[in-house]
Amino acid sequence: MARTPEHPDLQDVRLARVFAALGDPARLRILAVLADRGEHQRDDFAVEVGPSTLSHHMKVLREAGVVRCRFEGTRCFVSLRADTFDRFSTALDGVLRSIAEEAA
Amino acid sequence: MARTPEHPDLQDVRLARVFAALGDPARLRILAVLADRGEHQRDDFAVEVGPSTLSHHMKVLREAGVVRCRFEGTRCFVSLRADTFDRFSTALDGVLRSIAEEAA
Repeated sequence: MARTPEHPDLQDVRLARVFAALGDPARLRILAVLADRGEHQRDDFAVEVGPSTLSHHMKVLREAGVVRCRFEGTRCFVSLRADTFDRFSTALDGVLRSIAEEAA
Repeated sequence: MARTPEHPDLQDVRLARVFAALGDPARLRILAVLADRGEHQRDDFAVEVGPSTLSHHMKVLREAGVVRCRFEGTRCFVSLRADTFDRFSTALDGVLRSIAEEAA
């Protein structure tokens, strides 16, 4: 049976917590990968940290409502939460754009 | 003699640290006041925290490069750092706009 990690409801997502989740260089690099709006797996994130630290960063992003994690068997697919980025589009569109620019 | 608190050089301002500084509800409320790009004093910030907590929040914002503090005698004038918001305008224009919208 697929594990389904907890995600906050959209109504409980807070902008301050989203910013706190973005407030780390490694997590900004994770977002640079996710900025294509696709689903990504662990190996896609060229973050120079160990697996447990990467898991920690993913948990912070997930619990803040920034990313969604979908499990399929033993694999975990991570993507940006479209509902969060729609709701806070005024604040976050430019954030994504700047991250994509830096990564380009 | 006027006290001049330390401010990071623009080249040392990091986006991740700026986001970390924005990652607190009280600091977002401070930014809502500063979003008019004017100089403000302590009493302008309707933040329900004591003076030492307010000072802490200002220090976090100042050390991240988000605000500038100008002392005149015993008074402290706080404003957004135009250079930081120019440099990271892609990321931060929408942030300021969304904060201003919420405060309107």
